[in-house]
Amino acid sequence: MEDYIYGLRAIIEAIKEDRPIDKLFVKRDISGDLAGEMLALAREHRIVVQRVPIERINRISRKNHQGAIALMSAVTYHNLGNLVTSLYDDGILPFIVLLDGITDVRNFGAIARTAECCGVNALVIAERGSVSVGADAVKTSAGALMSLPVCREHSLTSAVKFLKDSGFNVVAVSEKATMGYTECDYTTPTVLVMGAEDKGISPEVLRMCDSHVAIPMFGHIGSLNVSVAAGVLMYEVVRQRLNADLAVQ
Amino acid sequence: MEDYIYGLRAIIEAIKEDRPIDKLFVKRDISGDLAGEMLALAREHRIVVQRVPIERINRISRKNHQGAIALMSAVTYHNLGNLVTSLYDDGILPFIVLLDGITDVRNFGAIARTAECCGVNALVIAERGSVSVGADAVKTSAGALMSLPVCREHSLTSAVKFLKDSGFNVVAVSEKATMGYTECDYTTPTVLVMGAEDKGISPEVLRMCDSHVAIPMFGHIGSLNVSVAAGVLMYEVVRQRLNADLAVQ
Repeated sequence: MEDYIYGLRAIIEAIKEDRPIDKLFVKRDISGDLAGEMLALAREHRIVVQRVPIERINRISRKNHQGAIALMSAVTYHNLGNLVTSLYDDGILPFIVLLDGITDVRNFGAIARTAECCGVNALVIAERGSVSVGADAVKTSAGALMSLPVCREHSLTSAVKFLKDSGFNVVAVSEKATMGYTECDYTTPTVLVMGAEDKGISPEVLRMCDSHVAIPMFGHIGSLNVSVAAGVLMYEVVRQRLNADLAVQ
Repeated sequence: MEDYIYGLRAIIEAIKEDRPIDKLFVKRDISGDLAGEMLALAREHRIVVQRVPIERINRISRKNHQGAIALMSAVTYHNLGNLVTSLYDDGILPFIVLLDGITDVRNFGAIARTAECCGVNALVIAERGSVSVGADAVKTSAGALMSLPVCREHSLTSAVKFLKDSGFNVVAVSEKATMGYTECDYTTPTVLVMGAEDKGISPEVLRMCDSHVAIPMFGHIGSLNVSVAAGVLMYEVVRQRLNADLAVQ
């Protein structure tokens, strides 16, 4: 599958055909009837549009892109509401991982791979400021992203609110927490929230979480690679559920 | 610090000055008195010499390397025997991680970072077929390799034998094991053995290990990224030791 589509008419066709577009990059000062038509269609189809300097588009392709390039998604996104409903309907004890601002493709891929291995039911990411779920992400996930559902939410705070209302214990993994991650109970419906490599979880999301847990640190560095931290947490959930004789996935 | 030194005279000087050389690459058909002198010195100083096609050297540097390039080590290697003795002398409950054939620098760096964070006392790697511990490794380790002792052993089987004789429980982490990794006891002196990304632990080392444990898998992929797997295991050691009120590091 190609990773991007360029040019106004090609992008308009792709939107009309409902091809899975991850993101639409348009140059800052784009204008003209065709560009207007494309942007209106994008709005109608709720596609994320980012206005960027033309240099950014040129870095992706030097072809005749007319100031617009659509990054194609390698996965089909799931609707979080439907997904949660069907998990409960199927009698599954749900386990969701929400990623707040992870931008490194290799870390994202490794997290998806671990999630697939330990029976996570879905990854939740934000529309903006997240990694681009393209061919590279699928490759580093060892293919996990072809089967693991991904929900891409317009607002992570709304997603967290929805999950809390749906009976989930929303657990923030944060270096500043005082509770050790093994002291928290993961034998009920659980959302693990992992923050960005640099900034951690955003304050708005952090405030909404039910529990805040930390991984104990004994050296001088004081922080793990985010995909390692996610792995430690996900397998603690698995450990507790197996210990309690609960089915995983 | 520069990552490599090229040219016969420069390398001879570096060896004489005892600069930390990770590996010496020489072209297959190297010859001449100066090359002979360099190779004799390298042998005397027990430096790892690898004969490679000249293209491999050209990929590292296009400068006038005369068919020889010394990859400098960013770390000073420790002697495993001395290290174990001093751990026991200091009353430390030791925790060592042995890496059998990890070649990906990012994975190695992430493992070193996790090891530093959870009080591992040393990493053990093989002289040959291991990652090159250069500036890239130090960078991806978030600096962990500047403080975490690394032992580079000529023979990993000899190292495992020595560690067994020194009272360590040597635990192989292997997908083929039937014991779950949480069922093993890590509250005694412990070595975790992690295998290469592709081939796993070599059969000779695997055969010598006291215990063989696996991380349970619930999806279709059936294997984790090695740095994630190492993180899950290292933190299980920490969890058990904290649970047993034992000091970590």
